[in-house]
Amino acid sequence: MPDDLPSSTEALLRLVLAGGALAPRRALLAGFDDPALALRAGPSAWRAAGCNTEQRALLALPDRATLAHGLHWLAQPDRHLLAIGSDDYPSLLTRVDQAPLALFVQGDPTALWHPGVAVVGSRTPSPSGAELAGEFAGGLARSGLCVVSGLATGVDARAHQAALGIADGRTVAVVATGLDLTYPPQHAALHARIAARGAVVSEYPPGTQARPGQFPARNRIVAGLTLGTLVIEAAMRSGALITARLAAEAGREVFALPGSVRNPRARGCHRLIREGAQLVEHPDEVIQGLAGLAASLGKDLRSRLDAPTEQARTVRGRVPPSSDPDYQRLWKSLDDNPTCMDSLIQRSGLTAARLSAMLLIMELDGKVVANHGRYCRKP
Amino acid sequence: MPDDLPSSTEALLRLVLAGGALAPRRALLAGFDDPALALRAGPSAWRAAGCNTEQRALLALPDRATLAHGLHWLAQPDRHLLAIGSDDYPSLLTRVDQAPLALFVQGDPTALWHPGVAVVGSRTPSPSGAELAGEFAGGLARSGLCVVSGLATGVDARAHQAALGIADGRTVAVVATGLDLTYPPQHAALHARIAARGAVVSEYPPGTQARPGQFPARNRIVAGLTLGTLVIEAAMRSGALITARLAAEAGREVFALPGSVRNPRARGCHRLIREGAQLVEHPDEVIQGLAGLAASLGKDLRSRLDAPTEQARTVRGRVPPSSDPDYQRLWKSLDDNPTCMDSLIQRSGLTAARLSAMLLIMELDGKVVANHGRYCRKP
Repeated sequence: MPDDLPSSTEALLRLVLAGGALAPRRALLAGFDDPALALRAGPSAWRAAGCNTEQRALLALPDRATLAHGLHWLAQPDRHLLAIGSDDYPSLLTRVDQAPLALFVQGDPTALWHPGVAVVGSRTPSPSGAELAGEFAGGLARSGLCVVSGLATGVDARAHQAALGIADGRTVAVVATGLDLTYPPQHAALHARIAARGAVVSEYPPGTQARPGQFPARNRIVAGLTLGTLVIEAAMRSGALITARLAAEAGREVFALPGSVRNPRARGCHRLIREGAQLVEHPDEVIQGLAGLAASLGKDLRSRLDAPTEQARTVRGRVPPSSDPDYQRLWKSLDDNPTCMDSLIQRSGLTAARLSAMLLIMELDGKVVANHGRYCRKP
Repeated sequence: MPDDLPSSTEALLRLVLAGGALAPRRALLAGFDDPALALRAGPSAWRAAGCNTEQRALLALPDRATLAHGLHWLAQPDRHLLAIGSDDYPSLLTRVDQAPLALFVQGDPTALWHPGVAVVGSRTPSPSGAELAGEFAGGLARSGLCVVSGLATGVDARAHQAALGIADGRTVAVVATGLDLTYPPQHAALHARIAARGAVVSEYPPGTQARPGQFPARNRIVAGLTLGTLVIEAAMRSGALITARLAAEAGREVFALPGSVRNPRARGCHRLIREGAQLVEHPDEVIQGLAGLAASLGKDLRSRLDAPTEQARTVRGRVPPSSDPDYQRLWKSLDDNPTCMDSLIQRSGLTAARLSAMLLIMELDGKVVANHGRYCRKP
């Protein structure tokens, strides 16, 4: 262990690289003001926190090449490492079992705080399944929600692409490799576009190759970052069902598209619906279905968006009311007086379903205050 | 009113032809041992039962031509008029609101006592919807259930045809006209085939033309005769949704096939699933879904099948174990000792899902006794 204090980022990266059980490393992070101090505290403090022999050895002597590679990657612009418990680590994710110790982020970390929906499904969807992935993700992005998915082929890629195709559309990819790599490799350009517009996220340090066990682990981040998970098409053994199960376990909503009983890729969705997932036929139904969570989980998101970092403040300017004409009509229909839904329908000419979906997004964004069924602009 | 006592059948037909409110006419039927005695009791007794002026006038002076036409129709072989409260009137139907005063039956009236499932849906199904109607109705008929539907074009006709295509397959059509007519007329041959194998049923006397209001009324009989209703494809304003709602109100199971969100004829099914209908992908799931009702409603059916009329006894010989090889294997696996499901799976080589569906049918048929999850042949 060197005598000079490592940077906070280097210390956090070394905690990540130590691997093994999460709890002792979370205890070290929680026990010191700065990861660097946790690292300087030395083997007895590490042992007291519960680190085993292997973890203590790696904390004392990390693999120099891996560490250097990670630090080099993190030194480029728009690259971040967010420690659990820090202000920037997304609070919804903190609530899931085995929340990652830290998140590598390429792009805008405040995208992780934006109200999001996971859009997941088969890697080999039917042609109409692929189209529906695009239609639903596009609709959700147009409504102001962040579309979160896994950068896989099939439904994931279509969902990301559709969100990118919307003006101001926001999307986050959670991947199972280090962020210096892309899996599958042919999605490198998509990876770059998502990083430029939203964020690409991983719990794995740069240099980490794709390994089978990492994909289900990745799914818990997809489920944990979002208010709900929408499954487009999924066969009975699809990883999308894992994401949906983890979302339900974390108290998030689960939505599924039905399909023909002759479509084997609808089986997983039908199973989810039987188990209690909401059957949806339109993106607005997803947004309406999230209303129940807005009261509880939305508070976490709002508190962050109310007291943002410099970076988040810039992002705030981009959230709805955005360029979408419906949002502009709704915004003009609102003022400082609490107004009931019926009046908003009359003023805006929009349907109740569309309005309630839009009001939820604006409430989550901290633009609108809802009280006993009446809505006004946030003072 | 003639001085000579009319036959019971003529008297019952005159009560039907009197029309108007059901309750007074039911009161007359219940108050006398025989409809003929109710008719002879005269205007003061009719008034005491609650009959209004018009009903009393029609009871005293029925339309002679209509009465003669009805009696002539009833005089042919295999034609029946079953009064509510009589031994042959199906007891499941008695439980619904506004149960018909009497049922005209062409064919075998004991078919109405057989455990049945309504298979209903769009008059203009998609090609795959029409095929699925046939596959599901065929599967249910093969399992020994009676397929009940409305003789309409589309799903109804496919369901009847599929049941007729199964050896020993049983089907009942409930129609909205008098049984001397067929609506739509092109289904006259199908009508005749159903009457020859099962039964065609109506609450309307011979000579009654199709009128719009009679179709929803017919649907309450479809729902009321059966343990559950399966909706194959239905647009948002489909009559099949009325049947499903009436089935739910009568405490019967409702099943619906999901479809693509792009198929407008799946909308009604999706609405039903959202409202609590069971999503099904296979006929066996329908049969399994009826298990909950077997304990309560099944008792009514069993009591009739245990103490049948001469006609019903003949039918008993035709119920499973039938020519279906799976039933024969299961029957050979059963004996007088209560046997658990695991042993039956081992003995028969059938799946648990298939076995439980078949055991339900055999239990409803009074062939098998179930007790604490163990099954034996009925002594």
